[in-house]
Amino acid sequence: MNFVIIGGDAAGMSAASRARRMYPDLAITVLEQSFDVSYSACSMPYNIADPDTPIDSLVVRTAQEFIDKQQINLLTGHKVTAIHRDTRQVSGKTADNEPFCFHYDKLLIATGARPTLPDLPGNELLMPLKQLEHGRQIKDAIQKRGVQKAAILGMGYIALEMCEALTDLDIQVSMVKPGSRFLPWLPRDMAQIVQDELIRKKIALHMGTDVQHIATADTGGVRMVCDTMILDADMVLGATGVAPCSDLAKDAGLAIGVSESISVDPYLRTSDPDIFAAGDCGDAFHVVTNQKVWIPLALRANRAGWAVADNLFAENTLLQGVAGTAVFKVFDLAVARSGLTVHQAKEAGFDPVENLIQSLSRAKWQPGVAKIYVNMVGDRKTGKLLGAQAVGADGVAHRINAVAVALHAGMSVADFIQTDLAYAPPFGPTWDPFLTAAIQLNKKL
Amino acid sequence: MNFVIIGGDAAGMSAASRARRMYPDLAITVLEQSFDVSYSACSMPYNIADPDTPIDSLVVRTAQEFIDKQQINLLTGHKVTAIHRDTRQVSGKTADNEPFCFHYDKLLIATGARPTLPDLPGNELLMPLKQLEHGRQIKDAIQKRGVQKAAILGMGYIALEMCEALTDLDIQVSMVKPGSRFLPWLPRDMAQIVQDELIRKKIALHMGTDVQHIATADTGGVRMVCDTMILDADMVLGATGVAPCSDLAKDAGLAIGVSESISVDPYLRTSDPDIFAAGDCGDAFHVVTNQKVWIPLALRANRAGWAVADNLFAENTLLQGVAGTAVFKVFDLAVARSGLTVHQAKEAGFDPVENLIQSLSRAKWQPGVAKIYVNMVGDRKTGKLLGAQAVGADGVAHRINAVAVALHAGMSVADFIQTDLAYAPPFGPTWDPFLTAAIQLNKKL
Repeated sequence: MNFVIIGGDAAGMSAASRARRMYPDLAITVLEQSFDVSYSACSMPYNIADPDTPIDSLVVRTAQEFIDKQQINLLTGHKVTAIHRDTRQVSGKTADNEPFCFHYDKLLIATGARPTLPDLPGNELLMPLKQLEHGRQIKDAIQKRGVQKAAILGMGYIALEMCEALTDLDIQVSMVKPGSRFLPWLPRDMAQIVQDELIRKKIALHMGTDVQHIATADTGGVRMVCDTMILDADMVLGATGVAPCSDLAKDAGLAIGVSESISVDPYLRTSDPDIFAAGDCGDAFHVVTNQKVWIPLALRANRAGWAVADNLFAENTLLQGVAGTAVFKVFDLAVARSGLTVHQAKEAGFDPVENLIQSLSRAKWQPGVAKIYVNMVGDRKTGKLLGAQAVGADGVAHRINAVAVALHAGMSVADFIQTDLAYAPPFGPTWDPFLTAAIQLNKKL
Repeated sequence: MNFVIIGGDAAGMSAASRARRMYPDLAITVLEQSFDVSYSACSMPYNIADPDTPIDSLVVRTAQEFIDKQQINLLTGHKVTAIHRDTRQVSGKTADNEPFCFHYDKLLIATGARPTLPDLPGNELLMPLKQLEHGRQIKDAIQKRGVQKAAILGMGYIALEMCEALTDLDIQVSMVKPGSRFLPWLPRDMAQIVQDELIRKKIALHMGTDVQHIATADTGGVRMVCDTMILDADMVLGATGVAPCSDLAKDAGLAIGVSESISVDPYLRTSDPDIFAAGDCGDAFHVVTNQKVWIPLALRANRAGWAVADNLFAENTLLQGVAGTAVFKVFDLAVARSGLTVHQAKEAGFDPVENLIQSLSRAKWQPGVAKIYVNMVGDRKTGKLLGAQAVGADGVAHRINAVAVALHAGMSVADFIQTDLAYAPPFGPTWDPFLTAAIQLNKKL
């Protein structure tokens, strides 16, 4: 039996490793177009901020280790260009332009996501950050060009993590986006807190700014020509979002779902039961709406990869879905979310109410205490907890997990109020800020 | 209508304040035997560690503020000695030995808990820490006696918090307990981690040591004569546990429950429907076992106080119960728990399995990363998650809340594995340590 995996990143390698543990005799082939597998992509901004640690230290396991220790036929530099469902084959070309073709009994598409750069003259000058090779290029550029000024197109969480990384390197950062709202998925008052933090760190934020074209500047740097200004920098990053790599699946006639991601069932099967999809290329059910969503996140990719191995030959692991829980750090603040924003809740047909509270991360006399802001969303019709967002300098990241678990359990806001959360003065006020948020929200429901 | 409350601490004052907001015309009388109301008892160790901040700064609101701003008839120095259910009266004596008597329509017993000191000759020399007055006495003693050496009888969480506080003041601390196990509710390997931390901080731990009597030493300090040694100190704290103050209720013929606490229903009513009990004097249902437990914790006291106000004249707020979630800090470590230990689970009739894992608090390259230990308990028969305990220097306190919420929701270990917890390298590994714990435990179930 041949198990073929397209893509050697989180989902692909998780599936390969677990399949090997479960089925010692299975022939496992992984086809990876780049030359990097199994690295911590989310750690790239932090590595870039540290000139003394090579980016290759983010590699968790090398291709050769997978080959030697797990007998996985891992082929890098192998770009798959077509899936032939009639003959159960995948074909493509190597980096040396040699054609290849593999037969599969079970296939996993784990092609991940790709950066979406705006369609602009000169957009090839924008440096994205998605694969390890991108990180390598950015890190090289910083050193070789002696970057002192950088521009970032985009203000999402990758853009903000990179903004912090570059600032740590004493690089002056300007951020540009065409839209007018900063972190538009946060309530305005919360987004403002994050925006204030950036301004305090001397970041220039150019919102409502359309880039018209990008060109190499006379100085050797990059010139971004916008509708209202010209911005010269030594380097311009493009962090304007990602899209699922679903072309192979689409060309093979597999069902495509939300945001052009590959549609999968709770067992990670595509519309062809012998073909699975996992990781950033596939969709998922949302535990709050029970509707399909495309939310590319690392934990889900790992979990889905494992589940594919479990489900290769039987329905063993049914994935319940995602809550869209995420957190990122930007300078001294953490920004976290789980579940729906009030806008998403409206779109999903709920009658949502949100309420923003301010509390403290610890008892007020404790060292390290900081303000913490929690916005909670509930459904007026059913009383159900729908989601929460939080911002603060202390105690935000793990507190959001209480909400994530509550969303999986389908709890009401009133039920959440009753949860017995931990209290000690060094770690929180008597009423955890998320309990206070729930109590205040419940009054509005 | 007269609402009379016995006890002006967390539960009593929460009930009084909320009842005032709900019922502007209700006559509310609070009878408090001490002269302190509404203070942060849990913050006392941290205040004691700080000689520059008076202990009275822990007072959240003074008696006069309750009287002036909320028209609550708050009487301090009023010790209730009897409840007369036939005539609906409470009677007692003031600090000036004046008798008093009040009629009630609804009564709340919020008498809290009292320190239980061992029955030893000289035990009046042991200084407990429960009420603000105790904190005042300890703080005064440290200053006036110029304490350099202190002994603590007991090794529970109050003892450990005080050990840290005294060490911060450069006081040399010895701890004594008759039992042989340190933190016996933790798995041995976890307890050892905490014990190692204390030894590293130069704390002397005398376990298996029976105290025979305590006396004033010739030097003016205190001498603790034990079976195997004599320990001289400038001050000896007694932190050997607490017991519910339920004598008034018992004498009035109300039902008494587990650990001699006052038995209440989910609406906080005692066996007399016009008499409520809330706070550390009353029992609660445990969300995992659905059996009665006595777990005195501050959040529950506040929550129960509010619920009493809600339920004075109608069944408005049903409390679901407690998960026994708690956390404390001792030097660089946090120790947290929620739900049942494997021993408690066995006693409750489960067929429990536990598993201890070691993970990291953040991604391995991140500053601040520390080892984190999680022990998780599940039921072999049903697969149900029963509880967890965790120890570590980073990221322990709020992570336990995910387990607390899962216990309220009655989740299985397999369900918990699926929860979509937040991930970013500065805050955790891709698989949160509690997910790793659940995955490993599930293999044993």
